[in-house]
Amino acid sequence: MDLPIDIEFIADSPGVTDAAGFVAAAVPCDIRGKGNDRLDLALVYSAAPCTAAGVFTRNDVVAAPVRVCQEILRARAPAHGFVANSGNANACTGLQGLADARAMAARAAFSVRAPTGSFFVASTGRIGRLLPLPRVLAGIDSAAAALAPSSVEGLRAAEAILTSDTRPKTATARFSWLGRTVTVGAMAKGAGMIQPNMATMLAFLCTDAAVPAALLQDCLRTAVSNTFNAITVDGDMSTNDTVLLLANGASGCDLGAAPAEARVLFAQALHRVCDCLAEKMVGDGEKITKVVEILVHGAPDAAAAEKIARAVGNSLLVKSSWFGEDPNWGRLVDAAGYAGVGLVEEKLDLSYDDVPVLVGGAPREQFLEQWRATVRQPRFRVTFDLHLGAGSYRLRATDLTEGYVNYNKSE
Amino acid sequence: MDLPIDIEFIADSPGVTDAAGFVAAAVPCDIRGKGNDRLDLALVYSAAPCTAAGVFTRNDVVAAPVRVCQEILRARAPAHGFVANSGNANACTGLQGLADARAMAARAAFSVRAPTGSFFVASTGRIGRLLPLPRVLAGIDSAAAALAPSSVEGLRAAEAILTSDTRPKTATARFSWLGRTVTVGAMAKGAGMIQPNMATMLAFLCTDAAVPAALLQDCLRTAVSNTFNAITVDGDMSTNDTVLLLANGASGCDLGAAPAEARVLFAQALHRVCDCLAEKMVGDGEKITKVVEILVHGAPDAAAAEKIARAVGNSLLVKSSWFGEDPNWGRLVDAAGYAGVGLVEEKLDLSYDDVPVLVGGAPREQFLEQWRATVRQPRFRVTFDLHLGAGSYRLRATDLTEGYVNYNKSE
Repeated sequence: MDLPIDIEFIADSPGVTDAAGFVAAAVPCDIRGKGNDRLDLALVYSAAPCTAAGVFTRNDVVAAPVRVCQEILRARAPAHGFVANSGNANACTGLQGLADARAMAARAAFSVRAPTGSFFVASTGRIGRLLPLPRVLAGIDSAAAALAPSSVEGLRAAEAILTSDTRPKTATARFSWLGRTVTVGAMAKGAGMIQPNMATMLAFLCTDAAVPAALLQDCLRTAVSNTFNAITVDGDMSTNDTVLLLANGASGCDLGAAPAEARVLFAQALHRVCDCLAEKMVGDGEKITKVVEILVHGAPDAAAAEKIARAVGNSLLVKSSWFGEDPNWGRLVDAAGYAGVGLVEEKLDLSYDDVPVLVGGAPREQFLEQWRATVRQPRFRVTFDLHLGAGSYRLRATDLTEGYVNYNKSE
Repeated sequence: MDLPIDIEFIADSPGVTDAAGFVAAAVPCDIRGKGNDRLDLALVYSAAPCTAAGVFTRNDVVAAPVRVCQEILRARAPAHGFVANSGNANACTGLQGLADARAMAARAAFSVRAPTGSFFVASTGRIGRLLPLPRVLAGIDSAAAALAPSSVEGLRAAEAILTSDTRPKTATARFSWLGRTVTVGAMAKGAGMIQPNMATMLAFLCTDAAVPAALLQDCLRTAVSNTFNAITVDGDMSTNDTVLLLANGASGCDLGAAPAEARVLFAQALHRVCDCLAEKMVGDGEKITKVVEILVHGAPDAAAAEKIARAVGNSLLVKSSWFGEDPNWGRLVDAAGYAGVGLVEEKLDLSYDDVPVLVGGAPREQFLEQWRATVRQPRFRVTFDLHLGAGSYRLRATDLTEGYVNYNKSE
C-alpha cells in the first residue's frame, strides 16, 4: 500500500505514549522467578474512556487472558487500558489461570480508580505454569504509581512485553484532519511460535482518534489480515496471540462523524503501523538470518495463493536451503506443488528478486550466478506466477537455522 | 495389527529377490557425476508376466518417472519389472525429462527382451536437473547382464536406490496356503522430504502370488495408508513418491481364485512388510535422534485425529523440544489446538508412554521426573485422548535436530 504523503511515519518511536492521553509504565516483577530486574509487566492507561477492538488466536486452546479480553470486548463497556506480562503465558492453567487473569485486569482497573471490566489483559511466555500472582499484583500497583506520558515509559513498556525478542518493536503514524493531529502509536512482541492467525505475538495499539467500536473493529481486522497474519517464523500458531486497539478521542477528531476520506487516512495509518510491527517481528524471528518475502500471483484465488505461500514459507527443506544460501528452487517448487491448489508445472514462472528462475516451468540456468547472489542477501523476494487466475498473496517468512533448533530444544 | 502366527517375517531380508521368479541387479553409473563407484541404478525383473499396482505422490508437481508409471498402470499390460536410479529425481525437467524417463523404461524392457511398456521407472535425488542419460542407459545394459536371483543382488539393489539414507531398507513376509509358499519381498528408501501421501520415498514390492490387478491395487492402497502415509520426518511431500507392487504368480498360489482367508493372509503379509519399511524410513530420517509415535484417540473423526497428529508431528517447536529431551507438553497442546478440530482443553488427556501428563486438561506435575525419563528414550509414545468421539490416528514422527538443518542447508 502506497503511503499518502500526508501520513507521517516513525519506525522506532516511543509507541503507545505517542497517542495523546495515553500514559504507560513498566516494572520488574520477577515473573520468571530468576531473581533479576528484567522488566516483565507493562501498564497502559487512558483517563478518557476508549472504544476498543481486538483480534485473537484461533487456536482451540485459548489462554486465560485471551478469554478475559474476549469477555471484556463483548461487554462493550468503555475501556481504560491494558496490563501485559511476559515470562508466563497463563495458558493451559485451568480455572485458576482464568481467575488469575481476571484478578490482573481487575487490579489494574482498581489501581487507577477505573471501573472493573475496563482493562484488558495479556500474557506471553511458557505455557502450563501458574502465574506468581502476588508478585504480579504488587507489580501492577507499582506500575500504576509510575504511569507517565513520557517516551521513556512508552519504550520501557515495549521492553517489558518481550520474550525471546532481541529488541523492542514500536511504531507510530500521524496525520492531520481539519487541523487536528491524529496519532496511532503501538508496540508489539514476537519472536517464536509465530504464524499468527492470529501467534505468541502481542500487539497493543493506541489512537487518540474517536472511533466507534464497530468501525474500530473493522479497521483493525483489515489491518491485521495483511500484516500480522501474513508472517511466519516457525509455522506455530500460539495460544495467546492478541492484538488490541484502543481509541480515546483525545485528538478531538471523531471518525464516526468525519467523511470517508478521514477514515481512509486512519485505515492507512493503522495499516502502516501494523505492517511495520509485523516486519519487525519477522525480522527478529528466533535466530534467523534471512527474511524472505514470498509473493504468489496468478493463483486460482487468494486462498490458493496463501496456501502456496505458507507451504513454501513453512517448508523445513526450503527454510534450511535459505539458511545455506543455496538457490535450490526445486524445493520451492516441491512445496508449492504439495499445497495442492492445482499448480501446473508447465505454466509456472518463478523469480528470485527480479532474476528469472523458471519461465513456463523451464529453468533459466544461465542466471545461476545471479540466483546465488540474490539468496546471499539478508532479505530477498521469491515470486511465483501460476498463470491460472487472479489470486495473489504476500507472506513474509524466515530461514530455519541450527541456532533456532538449539535455542528451542529446551526452556 | 496382530501378526498371525502363520506369517513368517524377516526384517532385514534380501528383499525383492526373496519372491520366487524375481531377479535383480545393481550397478554404478555415476549419476551424481562425482566419478565414484557408488551403486545408483537398480533393475528388477520377472520373466513371468506380472499384474501391477502403484500409489504415487499427490503433489501437483509430479516427476517424469511418476508420470510414466501412471501411464503404464493405466495401459494394464503385463509387467515385467522396474528400473530405479538415485542421485537425480528427474523432476521439473520438462519434456526432455519425460522422454528420458520413457527411454529408461524402454531400455530396461529391451535389455531383457520384454515388451516395451512392461517396465516401471523411478528416480530419486536432486530436483531440476536432467539425467546423464547415456550413462544411465549403459548402466541398464550392464545391470541386465548381471541379473540374478541371489540375495546379494537383492541387497545391492536396495543399496542402489538410497540417497541420504544411512542404511538399506528391506523386509520380507511369507505364508503358506494349501502347500504353496507365498512371499512378499520389498525394498525402500527415505530419508528426507518425507511426509508421504504418498513422499521422496520409493518402495518396490514383489510377490510370487498371482493377484488380479484390481485386488492388488486395493491391497496396496490399504497397506500404504496406515504405513508409508502415516510417517513424517520433515513434513515435506516429494515430487517422486512411488510405491510399486508386482505379482508374478510364481508361487502357484492364485489369490483371485482363493477363498477370503488367503487374501486376508496376503493383506497382512503386505501390511507387515510396508509397516516395517515405514518404520525403517522414519527411524533413518535425516539426522534424527528420536522416533515418536503420536496416537490420537477420541477425536470427532479419523480425519480430525490425523490433523492433530500431523500438527504435533510437524511442529518445529515440538520437534526441537524432543531433540532437547524437554517434556514441554505446552507445545504439544498448542499444536493440537491449532489443528483446528475443536479440541476442548478441559477434556484433554495426554500421556508420555504410560505416564499421565494432562488429565482433563490439568497437568500432573508430580510425574515430572517420569516425564523426563520418558522423553530421554530414543523412542517413546505420546497419546492424546480428546474425549469427543471415536476418531483415532497413529503417526510416527521424528525430532528436528541442528544436524538436519546443517545437512539440508545446501546440496
